[in-house]
Amino acid sequence: MENVNDSKLGRRDFLITAGLAGASMAAGSIANAAPPQNGRRPKTKSVMGLRTPKMETVRVGFIGVGSRGSGHVTTMLTLEGVDVKAISDTHRPNAERSAQACVAAGRSAPDLYTEGDRAYRQMLERDDIDVVLISTPWDWHVPMSVDAMKAGKHVLLEVPAAQTVEGCWELVETAEQTQRNCMMLENVCYGREELMVLNMCRQGLFGELLHGEAAYIHDLRGQMNEVERGTGSWRTYEYARHNGNLYPTHGLGPVAQYMNVNRGDRLDYLTSMSSPALVREKYAKDHFPEGHKWRKLKFTAGDINTTLVKTALGRTIMIQWDEQLPRPYTRHNLIQGTQGCWAGFPDRIVVEGKSPSTERWEQGKDLDRWYREYDHPLWKRLEAEAKRNGGHGGMDFVMLWRIVYCLRNGEPLDQDVYDAAAWSVITPLSERSVKNRGQSVDVPDFTRGEWKKAPPLAIVS
Amino acid sequence: MENVNDSKLGRRDFLITAGLAGASMAAGSIANAAPPQNGRRPKTKSVMGLRTPKMETVRVGFIGVGSRGSGHVTTMLTLEGVDVKAISDTHRPNAERSAQACVAAGRSAPDLYTEGDRAYRQMLERDDIDVVLISTPWDWHVPMSVDAMKAGKHVLLEVPAAQTVEGCWELVETAEQTQRNCMMLENVCYGREELMVLNMCRQGLFGELLHGEAAYIHDLRGQMNEVERGTGSWRTYEYARHNGNLYPTHGLGPVAQYMNVNRGDRLDYLTSMSSPALVREKYAKDHFPEGHKWRKLKFTAGDINTTLVKTALGRTIMIQWDEQLPRPYTRHNLIQGTQGCWAGFPDRIVVEGKSPSTERWEQGKDLDRWYREYDHPLWKRLEAEAKRNGGHGGMDFVMLWRIVYCLRNGEPLDQDVYDAAAWSVITPLSERSVKNRGQSVDVPDFTRGEWKKAPPLAIVS
Repeated sequence: MENVNDSKLGRRDFLITAGLAGASMAAGSIANAAPPQNGRRPKTKSVMGLRTPKMETVRVGFIGVGSRGSGHVTTMLTLEGVDVKAISDTHRPNAERSAQACVAAGRSAPDLYTEGDRAYRQMLERDDIDVVLISTPWDWHVPMSVDAMKAGKHVLLEVPAAQTVEGCWELVETAEQTQRNCMMLENVCYGREELMVLNMCRQGLFGELLHGEAAYIHDLRGQMNEVERGTGSWRTYEYARHNGNLYPTHGLGPVAQYMNVNRGDRLDYLTSMSSPALVREKYAKDHFPEGHKWRKLKFTAGDINTTLVKTALGRTIMIQWDEQLPRPYTRHNLIQGTQGCWAGFPDRIVVEGKSPSTERWEQGKDLDRWYREYDHPLWKRLEAEAKRNGGHGGMDFVMLWRIVYCLRNGEPLDQDVYDAAAWSVITPLSERSVKNRGQSVDVPDFTRGEWKKAPPLAIVS
Repeated sequence: MENVNDSKLGRRDFLITAGLAGASMAAGSIANAAPPQNGRRPKTKSVMGLRTPKMETVRVGFIGVGSRGSGHVTTMLTLEGVDVKAISDTHRPNAERSAQACVAAGRSAPDLYTEGDRAYRQMLERDDIDVVLISTPWDWHVPMSVDAMKAGKHVLLEVPAAQTVEGCWELVETAEQTQRNCMMLENVCYGREELMVLNMCRQGLFGELLHGEAAYIHDLRGQMNEVERGTGSWRTYEYARHNGNLYPTHGLGPVAQYMNVNRGDRLDYLTSMSSPALVREKYAKDHFPEGHKWRKLKFTAGDINTTLVKTALGRTIMIQWDEQLPRPYTRHNLIQGTQGCWAGFPDRIVVEGKSPSTERWEQGKDLDRWYREYDHPLWKRLEAEAKRNGGHGGMDFVMLWRIVYCLRNGEPLDQDVYDAAAWSVITPLSERSVKNRGQSVDVPDFTRGEWKKAPPLAIVS
């Protein structure tokens, strides 16, 4: 779940020094786009439910093959009908390592593009690439995606899709202008539990859905030890640039799918509060010598952020973010309906009329019968392969398998650019609310009304 | 934890019909008080840390001895130095039942005041009562407390203390004018776990405190079957009069104590969102015939409410309320600091440098060593008696024992009127935020600056 591309450090340092933190300013790709007004952007042709011509072979180019992107290469190599054509990474050894993986898998060696920050643009000029998979530091997500779509490629983009409202709109508008897919790779939506809960929700097991809870609570302080290279070397700066929910999509993505956000409902407004930011400064002091770059940073991101979202249908979603406190991992993954509730970490369920009592959770071995009845067909079909091939408990494999399946069969992808925008925009909007005493902030309707007509997501295989 | 006084139904129905829902309007006791302005009430003599002359015997009068108040009578009878002087209840059989309990315990029979809504005022005219303990429906809390303090009595008041901002100010101002105690009986603050966690916080086990979580999630739909008498007969109307957090104090009280709210920190502002209100209407339809009074109610209180509070020191508290969804009970009881975290339901802990790993909770039998090291002295002293005598796992006994101890020794009570106001005001402020798209609302500083000077709460025995 980390994006890694290590060679941008010099440039990033420059950006931070110059105060040019916005992704779109950094890239300048659509620098003159009109400023967004909530829900009032001129509507161009929607890409909701976009179907593209069937691809016999999905020809992929990768941008960024650090610890995250290299995993995607490996997984792609296990799939039928995929051709890894080219790889761009500013750190040549990364690119070579993934190229070797291709050869080791009996494929032809991909072409490499590794000279400088703009090498990926050369790769985009090729006409034998259908899809570009982007796993780079967050700043680069928007400009690279925009460039790729403008070059006629479909985009698979690591999370978060964008960190600014303007960046979200750029992705939406470019996808519409170019009629290309821009799917954010929210892998958690393909976890076994998440797929099963989606299945449960679609079958009405919990009744009418009322409330969800999502989180990314994951102590990542240790990444600060990646000082010169690796995720920590660029991600650490993010904690000194923001104060809000910096990483909302792993928790929110599945809950948004349960609730049919953008497909019958939508995120309407939110409010957000952050605690003080204390532990990263302490970690820097405890682990790095005086004068070290981490000790010069002023960490601004409150150690734990809590955001509340209200949907157009009146439901509520609580989203938490905390990447530094000493505490076990959780994404919450809670969905509450009129008839019952599922919650994760640890997994537990209660359903009125079906559980022995609603005063006690069913968990542990009690869950076996629920898996038997509700495991998602996609999971059941892929379980064996997923466990063999995929990272993160198989979810990475299932995600890429499903994307390749859809592209080869001319079916719409499960997540579209509106999802990418709605799930990612939590970051800048939470920042705005945090800054302003928790005042609530409207969430733009990136679909511009299309959410009312869109059918519920039904992931089938 | 329920307040029961059953005989006000006719009057309540009138109030609801006439739209006169506010407690202060209902009572008219300080009807002409100036409207409050946040933190700008004229400061009268604070009752923070109020010490009153030692009482050899604590002479108590009870108002309301339904299912909750009768329990308090029983518990009081187990304490040394307590004299139950009088009981008022508009339902005479209630009063007689508690009087018999006194006699059965070898005490003299208390005098009874049972004729009509104002009978309690006759009781207040006695000069042999020091303390009045009020366990009546919520509407009556403010007027009865105000009347009692004006009659020179100290007040022990069931939760919530008030349901309106004005009601909170009335309690504060009256306590200051009369220099009387007005303690809300937040029994949960005296639970074994809560006392232990308070002890842990005071000893700095979790480092600097950053974030807390509190809840009252308790499926109480079944109370609707108390149609003519009992808690449901009056509380059911509350769900048709509000939309917010109707019952914040059981969750918030302990967390506020951990954080030294009103004693070094204070609640600054909050924001709140409610889900749709669906399940009580369904319950009414499923369980009561057409034309039944429950089927005529329009339930307004969203099935689950989530409120975020920010403190003056920048900490955050998430508070949830849900008295109707099919789901196991929880008060969350989570406190997160820079070094570790405690969470309840189920109880679990993690402390950096002390737990085997911060990636896994210590729970179940792992907790034994924590109890051995951190059980609160008050709990250890009272455990055996508490388990024998008290409701709610002993917390009721410990609470009343501690109150009687303080009064007999001339020591300040652990909770004061500022706590009662700050913890209860969540209800009207959350309602205001819910109504207004989650806009944040300032929390009045009921202490008017005294919170900055007050020492931390140290419950000792």
